[in-house]
Amino acid sequence: MSSNLGTLFRVSTFGESHGVALGCIVDGCPAGIKLDKETIQNFLNRRRPGQNEFTTPRGELDTCEILSGTENSVTLGTPISIIVRNQDKKANDYQDINQVFRPGHADYTTFKKFGIMPSSGGGRASARETIGRVAAAAVAKSFVQSMLPYADVIGWVDRIYDIKANVNEELVTLKNVESSPIRCPDKLAEEKMKEKILAAKEAGDSLGGIVCCIAKNIPCGLGEPVFDKLEAELAKAMLSLPAVRCFEVGDGFASTFLKGSENNDPFQLDPTGNVVTESNKSGGIQGGISNGMPIMIRVGFKPVSTIYKEQNTVTKDLKATTFKTKSGRHDPCVLPRAVPLVEAMFWLVLADHLLRQISLNHNFLNEIRKYLYIYVNIPVAEI
Amino acid sequence: MSSNLGTLFRVSTFGESHGVALGCIVDGCPAGIKLDKETIQNFLNRRRPGQNEFTTPRGELDTCEILSGTENSVTLGTPISIIVRNQDKKANDYQDINQVFRPGHADYTTFKKFGIMPSSGGGRASARETIGRVAAAAVAKSFVQSMLPYADVIGWVDRIYDIKANVNEELVTLKNVESSPIRCPDKLAEEKMKEKILAAKEAGDSLGGIVCCIAKNIPCGLGEPVFDKLEAELAKAMLSLPAVRCFEVGDGFASTFLKGSENNDPFQLDPTGNVVTESNKSGGIQGGISNGMPIMIRVGFKPVSTIYKEQNTVTKDLKATTFKTKSGRHDPCVLPRAVPLVEAMFWLVLADHLLRQISLNHNFLNEIRKYLYIYVNIPVAEI
Amino acid sequence: MSSNLGTLFRVSTFGESHGVALGCIVDGCPAGIKLDKETIQNFLNRRRPGQNEFTTPRGELDTCEILSGTENSVTLGTPISIIVRNQDKKANDYQDINQVFRPGHADYTTFKKFGIMPSSGGGRASARETIGRVAAAAVAKSFVQSMLPYADVIGWVDRIYDIKANVNEELVTLKNVESSPIRCPDKLAEEKMKEKILAAKEAGDSLGGIVCCIAKNIPCGLGEPVFDKLEAELAKAMLSLPAVRCFEVGDGFASTFLKGSENNDPFQLDPTGNVVTESNKSGGIQGGISNGMPIMIRVGFKPVSTIYKEQNTVTKDLKATTFKTKSGRHDPCVLPRAVPLVEAMFWLVLADHLLRQISLNHNFLNEIRKYLYIYVNIPVAEI
Amino acid sequence: MSSNLGTLFRVSTFGESHGVALGCIVDGCPAGIKLDKETIQNFLNRRRPGQNEFTTPRGELDTCEILSGTENSVTLGTPISIIVRNQDKKANDYQDINQVFRPGHADYTTFKKFGIMPSSGGGRASARETIGRVAAAAVAKSFVQSMLPYADVIGWVDRIYDIKANVNEELVTLKNVESSPIRCPDKLAEEKMKEKILAAKEAGDSLGGIVCCIAKNIPCGLGEPVFDKLEAELAKAMLSLPAVRCFEVGDGFASTFLKGSENNDPFQLDPTGNVVTESNKSGGIQGGISNGMPIMIRVGFKPVSTIYKEQNTVTKDLKATTFKTKSGRHDPCVLPRAVPLVEAMFWLVLADHLLRQISLNHNFLNEIRKYLYIYVNIPVAEI
Repeated sequence: MSSNLGTLFRVSTFGESHGVALGCIVDGCPAGIKLDKETIQNFLNRRRPGQNEFTTPRGELDTCEILSGTENSVTLGTPISIIVRNQDKKANDYQDINQVFRPGHADYTTFKKFGIMPSSGGGRASARETIGRVAAAAVAKSFVQSMLPYADVIGWVDRIYDIKANVNEELVTLKNVESSPIRCPDKLAEEKMKEKILAAKEAGDSLGGIVCCIAKNIPCGLGEPVFDKLEAELAKAMLSLPAVRCFEVGDGFASTFLKGSENNDPFQLDPTGNVVTESNKSGGIQGGISNGMPIMIRVGFKPVSTIYKEQNTVTKDLKATTFKTKSGRHDPCVLPRAVPLVEAMFWLVLADHLLRQISLNHNFLNEIRKYLYIYVNIPVAEI
Repeated sequence: MSSNLGTLFRVSTFGESHGVALGCIVDGCPAGIKLDKETIQNFLNRRRPGQNEFTTPRGELDTCEILSGTENSVTLGTPISIIVRNQDKKANDYQDINQVFRPGHADYTTFKKFGIMPSSGGGRASARETIGRVAAAAVAKSFVQSMLPYADVIGWVDRIYDIKANVNEELVTLKNVESSPIRCPDKLAEEKMKEKILAAKEAGDSLGGIVCCIAKNIPCGLGEPVFDKLEAELAKAMLSLPAVRCFEVGDGFASTFLKGSENNDPFQLDPTGNVVTESNKSGGIQGGISNGMPIMIRVGFKPVSTIYKEQNTVTKDLKATTFKTKSGRHDPCVLPRAVPLVEAMFWLVLADHLLRQISLNHNFLNEIRKYLYIYVNIPVAEI
Repeated sequence: MSSNLGTLFRVSTFGESHGVALGCIVDGCPAGIKLDKETIQNFLNRRRPGQNEFTTPRGELDTCEILSGTENSVTLGTPISIIVRNQDKKANDYQDINQVFRPGHADYTTFKKFGIMPSSGGGRASARETIGRVAAAAVAKSFVQSMLPYADVIGWVDRIYDIKANVNEELVTLKNVESSPIRCPDKLAEEKMKEKILAAKEAGDSLGGIVCCIAKNIPCGLGEPVFDKLEAELAKAMLSLPAVRCFEVGDGFASTFLKGSENNDPFQLDPTGNVVTESNKSGGIQGGISNGMPIMIRVGFKPVSTIYKEQNTVTKDLKATTFKTKSGRHDPCVLPRAVPLVEAMFWLVLADHLLRQISLNHNFLNEIRKYLYIYVNIPVAEI
Repeated sequence: MSSNLGTLFRVSTFGESHGVALGCIVDGCPAGIKLDKETIQNFLNRRRPGQNEFTTPRGELDTCEILSGTENSVTLGTPISIIVRNQDKKANDYQDINQVFRPGHADYTTFKKFGIMPSSGGGRASARETIGRVAAAAVAKSFVQSMLPYADVIGWVDRIYDIKANVNEELVTLKNVESSPIRCPDKLAEEKMKEKILAAKEAGDSLGGIVCCIAKNIPCGLGEPVFDKLEAELAKAMLSLPAVRCFEVGDGFASTFLKGSENNDPFQLDPTGNVVTESNKSGGIQGGISNGMPIMIRVGFKPVSTIYKEQNTVTKDLKATTFKTKSGRHDPCVLPRAVPLVEAMFWLVLADHLLRQISLNHNFLNEIRKYLYIYVNIPVAEI
């Protein structure tokens, strides 16, 4: 219950940060998809900490192992199980926390929910929990791109604290983003963000911000009309990430300041005769269903709870005390590492709704073919 | 698939705005809960249009009928089926739209998703679709309050267009909200909002805004640690409402501008020795699990798509055209009617996670009893 | 929870025998399927009691109403809601039972499970509960045959008490079955069965027996390899019917008396070059997956619990007593009416697994086309 | 989809017989349950082949590893992941089969379903697939017995081929069963069964039979009234095991030869004033809900498909051929090893429905306490 996502492309994750291993099972991925260990490892490497001075120095290698579901680097249609063993676990890591509820953390709520307190405080509430999600997302991306070779998901850091980037959403590429150590493709903003992060690190404090993410070349028809609207599923997926506090689709918050006449996206025909919208204020989704335009979301992360300052709190046996994190292995700002997490959740939602739409509308497979032809100008013969 | 919500308190809705009836089945509600038709009707009346000059003049009575699941106004533990017949359906209502994709509406995406175009354009994409949700929420509230008599959910209009209300979240009551025709308990702001709405109505345009909603006296422990975090489930529930574009929990967007040292909520002991937080920036949820403090969310609605102005669009047979809504039965601003919808979704999420927590932690029933004692100062003997 | 079936072709039923109405929501049925009220009514009429002297004289007309999900007798892809109002409810019907646990009935277990006792004793435990299933199955059949026009499901009474029919499984047709008032196409056995039923009726007693059911022209590939094997899903579906006590697939019980060399079905090529099996002891399923041969099951029903003889039992307030059914409106043998129920559950399982296979193997739609060509000898051009 | 079982006590399994590892995730198990590796290993050892001359000589040790969900041998309430690495994989094991569809096996259906043929032929269709189930069942048993310390599940071989055992269902113990190498507690029958098995082995043939299984001290209230009847869930669980062809609950098949007056179980009060039934023909379930009496099922296994005799079949490229298994590592009769599998599935169903009932009826936890008192005569103070 607690760790399942998806209806047809179904992901189950497991693992505590202080346990033996973390990982996932992906069930429902069709057979015949090319999938090797390197694809998954590349995904995991992007979320890995310790990559530069702006992230935590913890040196987990996070090497993955595929236990099932593939043969000769091709999926079998059976559950794909992937694990990553915990290697950099230090016995005393959690010693200072196991009697104190850390402010902003899930220690107290975990203890009250389960009636038991894991040695790491929050049990599954850990950044390492996302390893299973990212491994599963590598499978999701492989599957989606096998059907929609031009589909892509690109995220970037749009703001850290009060430093806002200026990014051209139509032109930004994964390469632009990855060339920046903090995953902000606006070089000017990037420099200021670095300064802010280092200052926060110096002060033992932490910073939040915004990740933008866009999905391109997604066909019309993904998402369900009522509870499982595409934006609702994306919202859940994103809010399920640690430290996320807000979500917008399309113009989101800004839309609430517009009039209907300003906010509606008029339909028109593009040169190939296909229906497109003049503007894209709706962010590529109408009535919960993708309309073929780029899908655009924004995800807000609070400053991480782990800081190196004295804070008031209480102990497990209900005595007032103060708490200050001792070990220095935590990110002052998770935004750079949050980018691949946002992308991962996006891929998982797309994979699931792609399968759902295929099961619901049996002409959709033909629609996809036509879509490829019209949008990406591939000759039909090559599809 | 398209119309189910919840894991244990499970709601299935059905019905098109142009069909025979709309409604829901609620499955998983325990037996022995007091539930009569009036409770459900009162909920439905709050979402009903045509209540004053600020909402659409459509006169649906929306009278509900309970078909199953209760006897002598008490639930049997079996599926509760509730229907509302469409009465104010006018044959020509949709005549002007059935060859044109209305901008901002789900006509185009519905047609592409299903390969068929309902006469009403968007099929399930209609404000009337929410009838099933609201009827189900009446059941959810009855159930939750049977276990947590002091639990309550209160929503209000926090902003319309650029008019922001000033509301004391701790003191606002349902009565305050309901005494306002636009459900804004700040009388000063309310007057300005009314002006804005009437001006938009005059201009044939529409306005969006923000609904705030708070849940009080909710015990610690609701929500799951990974994908089904309480805020993730709330985000999905809210984004599944028509016209919603953004969601925040706690300080949300504002949190992204704070430092960790400013944003963390320190724990302390209240006079009765219970763990509480000094501030409530996290909005009552930590690590996806409620912490016993008030749960606070904000939900942003775009201006509704139906406006009385000429707009560019295309026809079903792919010809450029213009479209202007003819009939005048649509709200210029849905915010007042959105308040009970936000509350409804909140109750549905709470009911489901209350059952989930009971199944997971078998001491939780005792915890609830203790909670009643500590928080609400009821002598144990009376519980 | 209690009343949902299916993963993609999803059925939710509701209704008590003593309540206002019974019915179902079918969610997940694709758009564009021809479906009118008559199709559903015809299905319901087959399960209706009071059709001849061998069934209960209760005269429910069981007239259905489609509330949503279709327009102009075509499905919209949205939830299809169907209801049947209870009309023949007599106020005193259940008066004699509401303080006594009837032997063999669900009165006691329902009371203990829910902590509440419905006036009808067993709540959902009633033959009328199957109305929702049968209505949903009419949708399922329409959907399956829209994709597999030659697919069919034919059930018949194979044995009543000790009278065994002799039926050629390959040749039996729905028409053969329906021409018999007790749905046994073996005229000789039928006569003896009639005698047995009338004798049991006379004696105030009841009889059980076996229903056989075969699904023809089902393509290879339905069913999942592990928990959701096709035979496992069929077993659950059948055992979920009231009074069912045993289930066999293929040669079933008889297989346990064979050696592997006798029981294996050798593969061979049929004249068109397609893979078939020489024998069909496995009943058309291997490893949980249909192999293209006829799927054959047998379902055993106990004699119904309602008899007109004095029996020992206890009252709700735990006093020993005796009980004898007073009103005479119950079937002495449900087997004839059980046939359409078995068929209904079969269609529901087939519809669900057809959608599941489509979502999993994207070449399956082409496979179906080829199947039609090979098996049924339709020229490809006409498919 | 293909490999998930359970609603609240949720099991996901993975792994191919020719892959790196097999295993499971158990999600939904409450925190605080004692669970160590030995408990799981003991369960796995019972299903392990190679234990004596009556089972396959394959020497897998099947050593398990717990990757997550426990700490200090106590469950955390988080997903419990357990893996078993494949060790005895021989490169050439499957060489002879990868171009031929073995009769009776899932090679052909797997190939048609997924469009791809794993090197082992049937992919997940392998006796080794049950490792994940059995590991999960060890968790299930630990959980169920933590709440119902006197609950137990005991299975035994009731028949092999034509040799029927005579076993007193009320007195048989796990110890009786385990003292027999073929898990038949009737010593006389056991000897004849051994002879039959060795003769079949000699002949290169295989034998089927029946496993009986009883669950004792299960409280009234488990199971749902409609689709998820306890016997329906058990039927699905059992039919999902490899080679199972039939299922009976209570008197099952024999019931269909009785009259209602013979088959109904009259209620009476036991000496402690509790409601019990005089007979138990219903097998402890009425209307889909357990009634507190022993739950009794019978599961029929076909003779395994792997035999050492020449059989007709076809190749993957559709040429007629013959096939004869070469390697000699297969059981001539799976019945002895099927016993722990039947028990495993029983525990999984019980654990799930125990959680479901707790979430549905909040007095049930008190009922259990009372049950312990009444049935097992434990003084209340000790509960």
